[in-house]
Amino acid sequence: MRKIIYYVASSLDGYIGGLNGDISLFGQGGEGIAQYLKDLQAFDTVIMGRNTYEFGYQYGLEAGKKAYPHMKHYIFSDTLAFEEADEEVYIEKLDLTRIDALKAESGTDIYLCGGGKFAGWLLDYGKIDVLKLKLNPIILGNGIPLFGSSNTAGKLTLTNAERYEDGLQILTFDIGELGAI
Amino acid sequence: MRKIIYYVASSLDGYIGGLNGDISLFGQGGEGIAQYLKDLQAFDTVIMGRNTYEFGYQYGLEAGKKAYPHMKHYIFSDTLAFEEADEEVYIEKLDLTRIDALKAESGTDIYLCGGGKFAGWLLDYGKIDVLKLKLNPIILGNGIPLFGSSNTAGKLTLTNAERYEDGLQILTFDIGELGAI
Repeated sequence: MRKIIYYVASSLDGYIGGLNGDISLFGQGGEGIAQYLKDLQAFDTVIMGRNTYEFGYQYGLEAGKKAYPHMKHYIFSDTLAFEEADEEVYIEKLDLTRIDALKAESGTDIYLCGGGKFAGWLLDYGKIDVLKLKLNPIILGNGIPLFGSSNTAGKLTLTNAERYEDGLQILTFDIGELGAI
Repeated sequence: MRKIIYYVASSLDGYIGGLNGDISLFGQGGEGIAQYLKDLQAFDTVIMGRNTYEFGYQYGLEAGKKAYPHMKHYIFSDTLAFEEADEEVYIEKLDLTRIDALKAESGTDIYLCGGGKFAGWLLDYGKIDVLKLKLNPIILGNGIPLFGSSNTAGKLTLTNAERYEDGLQILTFDIGELGAI
């Protein structure tokens, strides 16, 4: 069974983006980001919510194109539609059986790139296996919570912690059985 | 000038307590907590908000008594009153000049033990010098945000990171000039 790995940048106060999705305070370079980009090469599949996909538009992504050229894309949204899409760019309904089917397929682990709302939905149904937090030494005060409006709480297991020169850390946690709040 | 050091336990999603202040998921023992308790010995002064002080009542603290026997206590609240209080237990109005006066007094650095609302107020006025985060490997989903409803954002400087056997980390950050969201 493939794991779903939520690999995401966050602030110390638990936001993956500031107001209006502002990510200007997040580290954009350095060794930690280089490690992240290297780690992404290991995934052949990415899943995301609509907001995260469309967030790419402001960075030049065109509707229906791949954000990560070497990965199959599954964008989970009940409302998104493309006039045309590249091969291996799929729109999926928010349906847990599709998540389970993807996990059961052969291939690498699955990169969950966001956003908070989609991750929270997956967390509430116990579908995320690993959290890799790019913990930035920043405070955002408001914005997009790490797990949206999830109502799940519990203990994780820290399996790795790496610290980079600019204060960025990449922390890896196994997510076991959690519970409802 | 004495520094104000916000030394606080938080979850990965940025809460210092869960719903209704529930802290049952936070680590209560182990090397990290031992280090924290040792570090507390270095402070001769603690400041806190009313909610944090009264939170102690459910752990046996009596109104007007010290939560940390070796520290002077300054509880910032415009509404709190005690029938009688121990020596060195003071109620202060939420007045920045009192904060500045405390920082200007001689003594050790000042332990800010919470809560989120009071810390957010101090952060918004640039009064917190250091954040020491006892980052617990837990998700809470909801609760008391690290900086309440603060509207401050910016970059901090990671100066130390220690990892303990149970996945707890103690991360130390210098807080420089931050800005409004």
